[in-house]
Amino acid sequence: MLLIRDLAQVATPAGRAAPLRGGDLGAVEVFEDAFVLCAGDTIDAAGRMRDLPALDGDVVEIDGRGRCAIPGLVDCHTHAAFAGDRADEFALRAAGASYEELHAAGGGILSTVRATRAAGDEGLRDAVERHRGWMRAHGTTTFEAKSGYGLDRETEVESLVAVRDAGGIPTWLGAHAVPPEFPDADAYLDFAIFEVLPRASQIAEMADVFVERGAFDVAHARRYLEACKGAGLELRLHGDQFTEIGAIPLAIELGARSVDHLEATGDLGVRALADSDVTGVVLPASALFLGRPMPPARALVDAGAAVALATDFNPGSAFCESLPLCCSLAATQLKLSPAEALSACTVNAAHVLGRAGRIGRIAPGYRADIALLDADDWRYLAYHLAGNVVERVVIGGELR
Amino acid sequence: MLLIRDLAQVATPAGRAAPLRGGDLGAVEVFEDAFVLCAGDTIDAAGRMRDLPALDGDVVEIDGRGRCAIPGLVDCHTHAAFAGDRADEFALRAAGASYEELHAAGGGILSTVRATRAAGDEGLRDAVERHRGWMRAHGTTTFEAKSGYGLDRETEVESLVAVRDAGGIPTWLGAHAVPPEFPDADAYLDFAIFEVLPRASQIAEMADVFVERGAFDVAHARRYLEACKGAGLELRLHGDQFTEIGAIPLAIELGARSVDHLEATGDLGVRALADSDVTGVVLPASALFLGRPMPPARALVDAGAAVALATDFNPGSAFCESLPLCCSLAATQLKLSPAEALSACTVNAAHVLGRAGRIGRIAPGYRADIALLDADDWRYLAYHLAGNVVERVVIGGELR
Repeated sequence: MLLIRDLAQVATPAGRAAPLRGGDLGAVEVFEDAFVLCAGDTIDAAGRMRDLPALDGDVVEIDGRGRCAIPGLVDCHTHAAFAGDRADEFALRAAGASYEELHAAGGGILSTVRATRAAGDEGLRDAVERHRGWMRAHGTTTFEAKSGYGLDRETEVESLVAVRDAGGIPTWLGAHAVPPEFPDADAYLDFAIFEVLPRASQIAEMADVFVERGAFDVAHARRYLEACKGAGLELRLHGDQFTEIGAIPLAIELGARSVDHLEATGDLGVRALADSDVTGVVLPASALFLGRPMPPARALVDAGAAVALATDFNPGSAFCESLPLCCSLAATQLKLSPAEALSACTVNAAHVLGRAGRIGRIAPGYRADIALLDADDWRYLAYHLAGNVVERVVIGGELR
Repeated sequence: MLLIRDLAQVATPAGRAAPLRGGDLGAVEVFEDAFVLCAGDTIDAAGRMRDLPALDGDVVEIDGRGRCAIPGLVDCHTHAAFAGDRADEFALRAAGASYEELHAAGGGILSTVRATRAAGDEGLRDAVERHRGWMRAHGTTTFEAKSGYGLDRETEVESLVAVRDAGGIPTWLGAHAVPPEFPDADAYLDFAIFEVLPRASQIAEMADVFVERGAFDVAHARRYLEACKGAGLELRLHGDQFTEIGAIPLAIELGARSVDHLEATGDLGVRALADSDVTGVVLPASALFLGRPMPPARALVDAGAAVALATDFNPGSAFCESLPLCCSLAATQLKLSPAEALSACTVNAAHVLGRAGRIGRIAPGYRADIALLDADDWRYLAYHLAGNVVERVVIGGELR
């Protein structure tokens, strides 16, 4: 047994439901002067110290004084399988170049494709493990990561395997961009669907597509996603990042798990998502990084949509692995409360990843994934902007 | 001697001038495969490894492989002398309350005044030291910190002494808000000038005033600042945060070191500052934290103003001690290049603090204050949004 005792607070999304919508999103239960007890890889109990049961047998104790425990954070949208960086491009953007201009000029995604292909299997594995370490340092105990910087059969498969072997949840982003060796999107999708999907679908849990002007349109996306669904993959979409070209209706039509980004989503899209079972994943670090408008997260929550919060960690448009920063941005830019932000990157993110009921809460029966905060108020998660607020994490009952 | 060798890069603002204006702000010199050599508390040499001179005597070596050295960061605007926090207020703001509304309702600055007065001398010293540790973890090797959460004689003096004893540069922010025991600003300023200034001026290097609707108007500020100048203090002003009510003309008239905030500054203010010797200090973390417009930093630099970059670290409007985050915000929100951001929070911040030529560069004769980055490209300082990019710091030749 692992006992974390004398914690200033334990804070967790309340209840057992997922995803959380509307007013339920902000229902966070807080125990003051509290403990968390783990049995093996599972949470056995949590509550106030005065309710701590008598314990037999071997118990490892952690002193939680001056600290808070929250559920380990769940990052449901990252592109962590990349090599190299785009610091040059970042400096050019600061000087005025737009993300779309850089992409059109052969920079952007395709420059990371070149670096990732060149890294080799070992290099890619090292990169994913390094990125996992960065994420853990910010409290992330479960991460999804997409391929999509290979775009050839070998590198796509290596990316998915590297994510899986690092303990992540792999998503095949086969339709991220059209690589230069193909004349157009149709020719590339022929290749992706017939040559890559059969192998990718054995490793990945989900498939994803970048629906955007200059990337893939709705007809392309439908073809790709239907093939992926046929191969047993759950569906995700990048939609409404720069332009509304139909990602939300397509996501609903196909029963996707989520549609992610939504910076350009208008009122109709908000209402359509709210009336559906598709989760809207907002990525405020990406909007900040690109100096673009924030997604309408407040409107989505108020309309009753299921909303999750993720980093979008990638080298070009969000070189940020920190979910605490995303919680700060949620509170200051998206007008979500700290409690809503916490639920959005725990319970609701777990739902997007098909793991509702297993991760995302500190409650009996959930996996013992915990983030320990160096603060006596759990809301420092959002309040302490860019602070080193996460002291360490527990994953599956083991202190990391 | 302390030798940091085999660094991926040494990056430093070029030349010897301060403050840097216009195109000079972005002139950063970068040595690849480089070293920094410190003699006692001073930098002796820096350059490429192939130019490293033969060394006699005792040399402590640090392996810099995979790391970059930049000048220790200089935070020229913080309110680190406070107790308590304002996490409650933060959650209320996320739910829609404005900063000005909370201030008018007795929250805001005055709630921190209550907590700071209640903390006692020991509590305040502990808080300042804890905050200094947070700042160092983000690469800050020199910090200014203001009083202004005491607003009585004893707590103001204790605040200034706590800052000084923690190695910071104390600024007397005697005119931060009118405390509740005074009927109006005039009566409070009588007290501040006649009862507090004589002692505060023996400890502080600078004086500061919050020029704003609801705080102090220009007539109040002139009276306060003239008295402070007469007592030998250098002058700073909080100006144009919410409204333009004349802080910039007053700063110029009185020969102030800086005017800080500038979120509401229009074209006339930009031109006036550019034509003056007053440095404009921009605080993008504060604008982000409050969800307010960013200051016109690009326009200021282009017009030829001296611009510095600081955190505004305080519990209410910028609970953020991270200058690297401010560099990220400078690049993504203010359209400054990473190089301009670096110069703004090193050389130009040192100028604001009256320490130009002594700190802010890695060059012979400067104090050996260095931030070591866990990256092989120094621009990760701005590029790695909320990343744990600072590995450790050297202060006065000593590894901390």
